[in-house]
Amino acid sequence: MSLLEDLNWRYATKKMNGNIIPQEKLEYILEAARLAPSSSGLQPYQIFVISNKDLQEKIKSIAFDQSQIIDASHLLVFAAWDGYTLEKIEEVFNRTMEERCLPNETMDAYKKQLWSMYEPLEQAWHANHAAKQTYISLGMAIAAAAEQKVDATPMEGFLPPQLDELLGLNKLGLKSSLILALGYRDEANDWLVNMKKVRTPKEQFITEIK
Amino acid sequence: MSLLEDLNWRYATKKMNGNIIPQEKLEYILEAARLAPSSSGLQPYQIFVISNKDLQEKIKSIAFDQSQIIDASHLLVFAAWDGYTLEKIEEVFNRTMEERCLPNETMDAYKKQLWSMYEPLEQAWHANHAAKQTYISLGMAIAAAAEQKVDATPMEGFLPPQLDELLGLNKLGLKSSLILALGYRDEANDWLVNMKKVRTPKEQFITEIK
Repeated sequence: MSLLEDLNWRYATKKMNGNIIPQEKLEYILEAARLAPSSSGLQPYQIFVISNKDLQEKIKSIAFDQSQIIDASHLLVFAAWDGYTLEKIEEVFNRTMEERCLPNETMDAYKKQLWSMYEPLEQAWHANHAAKQTYISLGMAIAAAAEQKVDATPMEGFLPPQLDELLGLNKLGLKSSLILALGYRDEANDWLVNMKKVRTPKEQFITEIK
Repeated sequence: MSLLEDLNWRYATKKMNGNIIPQEKLEYILEAARLAPSSSGLQPYQIFVISNKDLQEKIKSIAFDQSQIIDASHLLVFAAWDGYTLEKIEEVFNRTMEERCLPNETMDAYKKQLWSMYEPLEQAWHANHAAKQTYISLGMAIAAAAEQKVDATPMEGFLPPQLDELLGLNKLGLKSSLILALGYRDEANDWLVNMKKVRTPKEQFITEIK
């Protein structure tokens, strides 16, 4: 199937059946999330992969009691850096240079320019910019899941400070931004499964300037 | 090719060769962007598809003179709503109900709950939340381009207020959030084309909680 067919097959599954995703499919989805591009290649986030029912129960209670949190095979929690630092940027750039067999100073001018832009910006801007990058990764994970015929429900509907506390993200310098529930649709019990997919009509969505 | 192979094939092309993308591939990529999920299905953004060289020249001058802006076949500018309003939400929900042949009041409780959350939040939160959704759509467009063997360079490196002015986005209630340059790599002249793709190592990127 093509990506377009996959995207038409997928939908935000509201009722999952509890079946478990094979490990290789889970790894495939995570690898797509890892390969997502990000601003300056910094990948300012991590993914927590949760398949612990007690923890899922606790997350459900801070996520408007949505049933897919429990019925999912795995929950991916995307957690973004709460801020950029020169040290973090250097770690990424140094690894990049090392893996490319280039001297570390190759990226010095770029690093200096980037940090001169980021340093004066307030912490809220930093956290927000890092969080935005997780949405690209979420997109890749959703596309990969659809290709593997795994259902995926992207969710913003949870209480981030409570989830940060529950997962101990604060002390890691991270803030939860998104949850992706992965599993399999319960076709008999999901009200959304047979509903038409509705999107903004093409002529409203696209403006061509030739 | 699988999505993972496509994501390994792609890279943020720095030098494009000016060749033009066939119309059906462009439409395929735009359709993937349109099918991207978004928070509450609101799709709070539009895409401007630019293939006018004079305009590309002007955009290049407010985007750190990056050559791919001129050498691209098309530029996609993702422009997000500058804020949610009850009217905008109603338009989307009413269309959804109409296309699903359901009475408009089906979504009344959800609409009320959503608006009670959004209304008290400040305009900056609104604009930012809408902008985040464009990153999912960007991800889908990048994945679709890679599948079609079209190169794509995601870009945040431009001056949004100037681009908003240039495209007249303010009077449409929109703010530019991202540019995606679409075209074909100039292999002989792109320093990045043969560089190893570097990502955060899996063991740092993923934390499993079983």
